[in-house]
Amino acid sequence: MTSDVLFRLAETIRARRAEASDRSYTRQLLDGGPERCAKKLGEEAVETVIAGVHQSDDALRAEAADLLYHLLVLLEVRGIALDDVFAVLEGRTAQSGLAEKASRDAKGEA
Amino acid sequence: MTSDVLFRLAETIRARRAEASDRSYTRQLLDGGPERCAKKLGEEAVETVIAGVHQSDDALRAEAADLLYHLLVLLEVRGIALDDVFAVLEGRTAQSGLAEKASRDAKGEA
Amino acid sequence: MTSDVLFRLAETIRARRAEASDRSYTRQLLDGGPERCAKKLGEEAVETVIAGVHQSDDALRAEAADLLYHLLVLLEVRGIALDDVFAVLEGRTAQSGLAEKASRDAKGEA
Amino acid sequence: MTSDVLFRLAETIRARRAEASDRSYTRQLLDGGPERCAKKLGEEAVETVIAGVHQSDDALRAEAADLLYHLLVLLEVRGIALDDVFAVLEGRTAQSGLAEKASRDAKGEA
Repeated sequence: MTSDVLFRLAETIRARRAEASDRSYTRQLLDGGPERCAKKLGEEAVETVIAGVHQSDDALRAEAADLLYHLLVLLEVRGIALDDVFAVLEGRTAQSGLAEKASRDAKGEA
Repeated sequence: MTSDVLFRLAETIRARRAEASDRSYTRQLLDGGPERCAKKLGEEAVETVIAGVHQSDDALRAEAADLLYHLLVLLEVRGIALDDVFAVLEGRTAQSGLAEKASRDAKGEA
Repeated sequence: MTSDVLFRLAETIRARRAEASDRSYTRQLLDGGPERCAKKLGEEAVETVIAGVHQSDDALRAEAADLLYHLLVLLEVRGIALDDVFAVLEGRTAQSGLAEKASRDAKGEA
Repeated sequence: MTSDVLFRLAETIRARRAEASDRSYTRQLLDGGPERCAKKLGEEAVETVIAGVHQSDDALRAEAADLLYHLLVLLEVRGIALDDVFAVLEGRTAQSGLAEKASRDAKGEA
């Protein structure tokens, strides 16, 4: 699978915001502002939590997809680039990798 | 940048599960099972919601990164591949693209 | 204000469950089972969180009322008496009061 | 039992805010402001949701008690009286009772 479905989806969400005649669900969320988008993200998270502890793999996959989509909508309504969120993750992963390596070195495992 | 950071991070999370001596935060979450991982995802979602309506861009970027990380942990503890979540998203995006095209065609805009 | 609005409301919710012809919102929630009731409770909590950090006193009062109502519905669908939840609270409050007194005594403030 | 336990608990929470030397958990929450109190409410709601779909009656009773306590803390930090939240509930219950009666009358059941 190409890994860039998130970036293409973020692009689609941005396009819906720009087009005057758009009447999509995405556009309605964006028109509702950060409060509406955050509320929907929270609701999807609740569904992901329930699916996580209590439902099938298919249900969890579907809820996780919904959560990702609504996260992208919240980022767009706030004008935040997915790239910048990934940069934060990247930084932490690098740091954690270094910490792990340092700890292995200290134990003479390196 | 590509979504590859998510796949690398998912890989790191999986590795922490496998390694006997791992004592990381990630490993503690995984050892807590789906309930603990889902609970943490829910908590991070609450923080993302608050950041979404009420905090700075930096705060929202950090919370979004935390949310993504904890979603990957929940997927791992349930044995669900990120690829398969992306496939769900991909399918929906394609469908929504087709619906949009059909609607444009119907209006003679194509 | 009489303090027993919660008990009267719990009674009303229970009655809706029992009456064959009931078509109320409450009844639909109960018919959806614990999963549906818990999901709605989670959604109302998200709204209470948003109101708590970002909205007017009127909005927070309304969201808090919604949250209490949906908590009563979840308790009813699980067959749990409000009295028993209050007994847990009562026990903790007593304990915390004792702990506080002990701590004051220790400091010679009693 | 009556809802008076909630009013007594609200009173205790208010007292902790006023007393200069208080170092309780409640006081730490209140000192954290609405954001911290709302975040904790959200976390407790996540736990109540999980207990609601997936855990024992004892667990749900305990989580419901935690949720109520943290709701009282959020109300206190925002300066909102429990009485006023109950008044909102009371108003809705009355309205819903009237609607129900009107509907019974219309069906000639009264």
